[in-house]
Amino acid sequence: MKMSGGVEWALHCSVVLTAADRPVPAARLAELHDVSSTYLAKQLQALSRAGIVRSVQGHAGGYVLTRAPGEITVLDIVEAVDGARPAFVCTEIRQRGPLATPAGACVKPCPISRAMTAADDAWRASLGTVTIADLAAEVTEDYGPSTFAGLRAWLAAPPAAA
Amino acid sequence: MKMSGGVEWALHCSVVLTAADRPVPAARLAELHDVSSTYLAKQLQALSRAGIVRSVQGHAGGYVLTRAPGEITVLDIVEAVDGARPAFVCTEIRQRGPLATPAGACVKPCPISRAMTAADDAWRASLGTVTIADLAAEVTEDYGPSTFAGLRAWLAAPPAAA
Repeated sequence: MKMSGGVEWALHCSVVLTAADRPVPAARLAELHDVSSTYLAKQLQALSRAGIVRSVQGHAGGYVLTRAPGEITVLDIVEAVDGARPAFVCTEIRQRGPLATPAGACVKPCPISRAMTAADDAWRASLGTVTIADLAAEVTEDYGPSTFAGLRAWLAAPPAAA
Repeated sequence: MKMSGGVEWALHCSVVLTAADRPVPAARLAELHDVSSTYLAKQLQALSRAGIVRSVQGHAGGYVLTRAPGEITVLDIVEAVDGARPAFVCTEIRQRGPLATPAGACVKPCPISRAMTAADDAWRASLGTVTIADLAAEVTEDYGPSTFAGLRAWLAAPPAAA
Protein backbone atom coordinates (compact mmCIF):
# COMPACT_ATOMS: atom_id res chain seq x y z
CA MET A 1 0.00 0.00 0.00
CA LYS A 2 1.41 3.34 -0.94
CA MET A 3 0.42 6.91 -0.22
CA SER A 4 1.24 9.84 -2.47
CA GLY A 5 4.54 11.40 -1.44
CA GLY A 6 2.81 14.77 -1.71
CA VAL A 7 0.97 14.14 1.56
CA GLU A 8 4.15 14.57 3.59
CA TRP A 9 4.98 17.89 1.89
CA ALA A 10 1.42 19.15 2.28
CA LEU A 11 1.46 18.33 5.99
CA HIS A 12 4.79 20.10 6.53
CA CYS A 13 3.57 23.18 4.63
CA SER A 14 0.34 23.25 6.64
CA VAL A 15 2.22 23.11 9.95
CA VAL A 16 4.54 25.89 8.72
CA LEU A 17 1.55 28.04 7.81
CA THR A 18 0.33 27.86 11.42
CA ALA A 19 3.42 29.94 12.29
CA ALA A 20 2.90 32.59 9.63
CA ASP A 21 1.31 35.91 10.44
CA ARG A 22 1.04 36.90 6.79
CA PRO A 23 0.57 35.07 3.47
CA VAL A 24 3.53 32.87 2.48
CA PRO A 25 4.44 32.65 -1.21
CA ALA A 26 4.75 29.14 -2.63
CA ALA A 27 8.34 29.92 -3.63
CA ARG A 28 9.17 30.75 -0.01
CA LEU A 29 7.68 27.43 1.19
CA ALA A 30 9.71 25.67 -1.49
CA GLU A 31 12.90 27.45 -0.37
CA LEU A 32 12.23 26.56 3.26
CA HIS A 33 11.82 22.89 2.37
CA ASP A 34 14.55 22.85 -0.29
CA VAL A 35 12.20 21.35 -2.85
CA SER A 36 11.11 22.23 -6.38
CA SER A 37 8.53 25.06 -6.49
CA THR A 38 6.65 23.28 -9.25
CA TYR A 39 6.29 20.12 -7.20
CA LEU A 40 5.24 21.98 -4.07
CA ALA A 41 2.77 24.14 -6.04
CA LYS A 42 0.94 20.95 -7.00
CA GLN A 43 0.42 20.03 -3.33
CA LEU A 44 -0.60 23.58 -2.40
CA GLN A 45 -3.13 23.58 -5.22
CA ALA A 46 -4.59 20.34 -3.86
CA LEU A 47 -4.91 21.97 -0.42
CA SER A 48 -6.48 24.99 -2.08
CA ARG A 49 -9.02 22.89 -4.01
CA ALA A 50 -9.98 21.22 -0.71
CA GLY A 51 -10.49 24.63 0.91
CA ILE A 52 -7.69 24.17 3.47
CA VAL A 53 -5.54 27.04 2.20
CA ARG A 54 -6.29 29.94 -0.09
CA SER A 55 -4.07 32.03 -2.27
CA VAL A 56 -3.95 35.75 -1.51
CA GLN A 57 -3.06 37.73 -4.63
CA GLY A 58 -0.84 40.79 -4.89
CA HIS A 59 2.57 42.08 -3.82
CA ALA A 60 2.36 40.63 -0.29
CA GLY A 61 0.42 37.61 -1.51
CA GLY A 62 0.87 33.94 -0.82
CA TYR A 63 -0.87 31.09 0.91
CA VAL A 64 -2.82 31.30 4.18
CA LEU A 65 -4.82 28.72 6.08
CA THR A 66 -8.55 29.25 5.65
CA ARG A 67 -9.43 28.24 9.20
CA ALA A 68 -7.93 27.81 12.64
CA PRO A 69 -5.20 25.13 12.84
CA GLY A 70 -7.30 23.35 15.47
CA GLU A 71 -10.00 22.88 12.83
CA ILE A 72 -7.81 21.25 10.19
CA THR A 73 -7.14 17.55 10.75
CA VAL A 74 -4.39 15.40 9.33
CA LEU A 75 -7.18 13.46 7.61
CA ASP A 76 -8.34 16.64 5.84
CA ILE A 77 -4.87 17.06 4.39
CA VAL A 78 -4.37 13.39 3.50
CA GLU A 79 -7.70 13.36 1.65
CA ALA A 80 -6.97 16.68 -0.06
CA VAL A 81 -3.75 15.35 -1.57
CA ASP A 82 -4.30 11.61 -1.84
CA GLY A 83 -8.06 11.48 -2.32
CA ALA A 84 -10.72 9.99 -0.08
CA ARG A 85 -11.03 6.70 -1.95
CA PRO A 86 -10.30 3.72 0.31
CA ALA A 87 -7.12 1.75 -0.41
CA PHE A 88 -9.11 -1.45 -0.86
CA VAL A 89 -11.65 -1.46 -3.64
CA CYS A 90 -14.04 -4.43 -3.81
CA THR A 91 -14.37 -5.76 -7.35
CA GLU A 92 -17.24 -8.14 -6.48
CA ILE A 93 -15.28 -11.34 -6.94
CA ARG A 94 -18.21 -13.16 -5.33
CA GLN A 95 -20.19 -12.50 -8.52
CA ARG A 96 -17.70 -14.40 -10.72
CA GLY A 97 -17.31 -17.99 -11.84
CA PRO A 98 -19.47 -21.13 -11.75
CA LEU A 99 -20.64 -20.57 -8.14
CA ALA A 100 -21.24 -16.83 -8.55
CA THR A 101 -23.54 -15.16 -6.07
CA PRO A 102 -26.30 -13.55 -8.14
CA ALA A 103 -26.04 -9.76 -8.21
CA GLY A 104 -29.53 -9.56 -6.68
CA ALA A 105 -28.33 -11.47 -3.60
CA CYS A 106 -25.43 -9.06 -3.07
CA VAL A 107 -27.50 -6.67 -1.00
CA LYS A 108 -24.66 -5.77 1.34
CA PRO A 109 -20.88 -5.67 0.97
CA CYS A 110 -19.20 -9.07 1.28
CA PRO A 111 -17.47 -9.98 4.57
CA ILE A 112 -14.03 -9.30 3.09
CA SER A 113 -15.09 -5.85 1.98
CA ARG A 114 -16.63 -5.18 5.40
CA ALA A 115 -13.38 -6.10 7.18
CA MET A 116 -11.39 -3.81 4.91
CA THR A 117 -13.88 -0.97 5.37
CA ALA A 118 -13.72 -1.32 9.16
CA ALA A 119 -9.92 -1.02 9.01
CA ASP A 120 -10.14 1.95 6.67
CA ASP A 121 -12.60 3.61 9.07
CA ALA A 122 -10.17 3.00 11.98
CA TRP A 123 -7.35 4.56 9.96
CA ARG A 124 -9.38 7.64 9.06
CA ALA A 125 -10.71 7.98 12.61
CA SER A 126 -7.14 8.01 13.90
CA LEU A 127 -6.02 10.66 11.39
CA GLY A 128 -9.17 12.66 12.12
CA THR A 129 -8.29 13.05 15.80
CA VAL A 130 -5.04 14.94 15.12
CA THR A 131 -5.15 18.56 14.00
CA ILE A 132 -2.29 20.63 12.63
CA ALA A 133 -2.54 22.66 15.85
CA ASP A 134 -1.70 19.41 17.66
CA LEU A 135 1.23 18.82 15.32
CA ALA A 136 2.52 22.36 15.88
CA ALA A 137 2.24 21.89 19.66
CA GLU A 138 4.20 18.65 19.40
CA VAL A 139 6.90 20.33 17.32
CA THR A 140 7.26 22.91 20.10
CA GLU A 141 7.35 20.14 22.68
CA ASP A 142 10.01 18.21 20.73
CA TYR A 143 12.30 21.08 19.72
CA GLY A 144 11.43 23.95 22.06
CA PRO A 145 9.51 27.22 21.65
CA SER A 146 12.33 28.85 19.66
CA THR A 147 11.49 26.60 16.71
CA PHE A 148 8.35 28.46 15.70
CA ALA A 149 9.80 31.84 16.68
CA GLY A 150 12.72 31.18 14.32
CA LEU A 151 10.38 29.98 11.61
CA ARG A 152 8.16 33.04 11.98
CA ALA A 153 11.18 35.34 11.71
CA TRP A 154 12.47 33.51 8.64
CA LEU A 155 9.07 33.71 6.94
CA ALA A 156 8.86 37.45 7.68
CA ALA A 157 12.35 38.19 6.33
CA PRO A 158 12.80 38.99 2.65
CA PRO A 159 14.08 36.04 0.59
CA ALA A 160 17.82 35.90 -0.02
CA ALA A 161 18.88 37.49 -3.30
CA ALA A 162 19.14 34.89 -6.01
CA MET B 1 -3.67 5.34 -1.36
CA LYS B 2 -3.88 2.11 -3.22
CA MET B 3 -3.61 -1.52 -2.23
CA SER B 4 -2.48 -4.27 -4.55
CA GLY B 5 -5.50 -5.82 -6.29
CA GLY B 6 -3.99 -9.21 -5.46
CA VAL B 7 -5.07 -8.83 -1.83
CA GLU B 8 -8.73 -9.31 -2.72
CA TRP B 9 -7.99 -12.50 -4.71
CA ALA B 10 -5.76 -13.88 -1.96
CA LEU B 11 -8.46 -13.27 0.64
CA HIS B 12 -11.11 -14.99 -1.47
CA CYS B 13 -8.83 -17.98 -2.12
CA SER B 14 -8.01 -18.27 1.59
CA VAL B 15 -11.68 -18.29 2.56
CA VAL B 16 -12.36 -20.91 -0.14
CA LEU B 17 -9.55 -23.09 1.24
CA THR B 18 -11.29 -23.16 4.63
CA ALA B 19 -14.02 -25.21 2.90
CA ALA B 20 -11.68 -27.71 1.24
CA ASP B 21 -11.05 -31.11 2.75
CA ARG B 22 -8.23 -31.86 0.33
CA PRO B 23 -5.57 -29.84 -1.53
CA VAL B 24 -7.00 -27.50 -4.20
CA PRO B 25 -5.01 -27.03 -7.41
CA ALA B 26 -4.30 -23.43 -8.39
CA ALA B 27 -6.08 -24.05 -11.71
CA ARG B 28 -9.22 -25.09 -9.83
CA LEU B 29 -9.14 -21.90 -7.72
CA ALA B 30 -8.67 -19.90 -10.94
CA GLU B 31 -11.65 -21.69 -12.54
CA LEU B 32 -13.82 -21.04 -9.48
CA HIS B 33 -12.98 -17.34 -9.57
CA ASP B 34 -12.98 -17.05 -13.37
CA VAL B 35 -9.55 -15.45 -13.38
CA SER B 36 -6.24 -16.14 -15.12
CA SER B 37 -4.29 -19.03 -13.53
CA THR B 38 -1.05 -17.15 -13.98
CA TYR B 39 -2.33 -14.13 -12.11
CA LEU B 40 -3.80 -16.20 -9.29
CA ALA B 41 -0.62 -18.29 -9.04
CA LYS B 42 1.26 -15.10 -8.19
CA GLN B 43 -1.03 -14.42 -5.22
CA LEU B 44 -0.88 -18.05 -4.06
CA GLN B 45 2.91 -17.93 -4.22
CA ALA B 46 2.87 -14.82 -2.02
CA LEU B 47 0.68 -16.69 0.50
CA SER B 48 3.05 -19.64 0.29
CA ARG B 49 6.14 -17.47 0.88
CA ALA B 50 4.41 -16.06 3.96
CA GLY B 51 3.69 -19.57 5.25
CA ILE B 52 -0.11 -19.20 5.06
CA VAL B 53 -0.62 -21.92 2.44
CA ARG B 54 1.61 -24.69 1.21
CA SER B 55 1.69 -26.57 -2.03
CA VAL B 56 1.16 -30.33 -1.82
CA GLN B 57 2.82 -32.10 -4.74
CA GLY B 58 1.53 -35.09 -6.70
CA HIS B 59 -1.58 -36.37 -8.47
CA ALA B 60 -4.00 -35.11 -5.78
CA GLY B 61 -1.84 -32.07 -5.09
CA GLY B 62 -2.76 -28.45 -4.68
CA TYR B 63 -2.85 -25.75 -2.03
CA VAL B 64 -3.81 -26.21 1.61
CA LEU B 65 -3.85 -23.81 4.54
CA THR B 66 -0.92 -24.41 6.87
CA ARG B 67 -2.86 -23.65 10.04
CA ALA B 68 -6.39 -23.41 11.40
CA PRO B 69 -8.51 -20.68 9.75
CA GLY B 70 -8.97 -19.12 13.19
CA GLU B 71 -5.22 -18.56 13.32
CA ILE B 72 -4.91 -16.70 10.01
CA THR B 73 -5.87 -13.04 10.15
CA VAL B 74 -6.83 -10.73 7.33
CA LEU B 75 -3.71 -8.76 8.25
CA ASP B 76 -1.53 -11.85 7.65
CA ILE B 77 -2.92 -12.08 4.12
CA VAL B 78 -2.72 -8.36 3.39
CA GLU B 79 0.92 -8.29 4.49
CA ALA B 80 1.73 -11.47 2.56
CA VAL B 81 0.52 -9.97 -0.72
CA ASP B 82 0.99 -6.23 -0.27
CA GLY B 83 3.97 -6.18 2.09
CA ALA B 84 4.17 -4.90 5.64
CA ARG B 85 5.62 -1.51 4.76
CA PRO B 86 3.42 1.35 6.01
CA ALA B 87 1.66 3.43 3.35
CA PHE B 88 3.30 6.61 4.66
CA VAL B 89 7.08 6.72 4.54
CA CYS B 90 8.78 9.63 6.31
CA THR B 91 11.51 11.17 4.17
CA GLU B 92 12.82 13.41 6.98
CA ILE B 93 11.68 16.68 5.46
CA ARG B 94 12.55 18.33 8.79
CA GLN B 95 16.24 17.82 7.95
CA ARG B 96 16.02 19.90 4.76
CA GLY B 97 16.45 23.55 3.92
CA PRO B 98 17.81 26.63 5.73
CA LEU B 99 16.06 25.81 9.05
CA ALA B 100 16.86 22.10 8.95
CA THR B 101 16.75 20.21 12.22
CA PRO B 102 20.22 18.67 12.64
CA ALA B 103 20.16 14.88 12.16
CA GLY B 104 21.53 14.50 15.70
CA ALA B 105 18.44 16.24 17.13
CA CYS B 106 16.09 13.90 15.28
CA VAL B 107 16.11 11.33 18.04
CA LYS B 108 12.49 10.36 17.58
CA PRO B 109 10.11 10.38 14.62
CA CYS B 110 8.61 13.80 13.85
CA PRO B 111 5.02 14.54 14.96
CA ILE B 112 3.72 14.06 11.42
CA SER B 113 5.33 10.65 11.19
CA ARG B 114 3.98 9.72 14.64
CA ALA B 115 0.42 10.62 13.62
CA MET B 116 0.72 8.53 10.46
CA THR B 117 2.20 5.60 12.38
CA ALA B 118 -0.63 5.71 14.94
CA ALA B 119 -3.18 5.53 12.10
CA ASP B 120 -1.27 2.70 10.44
CA ASP B 121 -1.24 0.85 13.77
CA ALA B 122 -5.01 1.32 14.09
CA TRP B 123 -5.51 -0.02 10.56
CA ARG B 124 -3.36 -3.09 11.19
CA ALA B 125 -4.96 -3.69 14.60
CA SER B 126 -8.38 -3.72 12.95
CA LEU B 127 -7.29 -6.17 10.23
CA GLY B 128 -5.56 -8.29 12.86
CA THR B 129 -8.79 -8.90 14.78
CA VAL B 130 -10.52 -10.65 11.87
CA THR B 131 -9.55 -14.20 10.92
CA ILE B 132 -10.51 -16.10 7.80
CA ALA B 133 -12.59 -18.33 10.09
CA ASP B 134 -14.56 -15.19 10.97
CA LEU B 135 -14.95 -14.37 7.26
CA ALA B 136 -16.14 -17.91 6.51
CA ALA B 137 -18.66 -17.70 9.37
CA GLU B 138 -19.94 -14.39 8.00
CA VAL B 139 -20.31 -15.87 4.51
CA THR B 140 -22.47 -18.61 6.02
CA GLU B 141 -24.46 -16.01 7.93
CA ASP B 142 -24.96 -13.88 4.80
CA TYR B 143 -25.77 -16.62 2.27
CA GLY B 144 -26.76 -19.64 4.37
CA PRO B 145 -25.04 -22.95 5.24
CA SER B 146 -25.53 -24.37 1.73
CA THR B 147 -22.90 -21.95 0.41
CA PHE B 148 -19.93 -23.82 1.85
CA ALA B 149 -21.56 -27.21 1.27
CA GLY B 150 -21.93 -26.34 -2.42
CA LEU B 151 -18.38 -25.02 -2.56
CA ARG B 152 -17.02 -28.16 -0.91
CA ALA B 153 -18.87 -30.36 -3.40
CA TRP B 154 -17.63 -28.30 -6.34
CA LEU B 155 -14.04 -28.48 -5.12
CA ALA B 156 -14.31 -32.28 -4.67
CA ALA B 157 -15.78 -32.84 -8.15
CA PRO B 158 -13.42 -33.38 -11.09
CA PRO B 159 -12.93 -30.26 -13.23
CA ALA B 160 -15.12 -29.99 -16.32
CA ALA B 161 -13.45 -31.36 -19.45
CA ALA B 162 -11.73 -28.59 -21.39
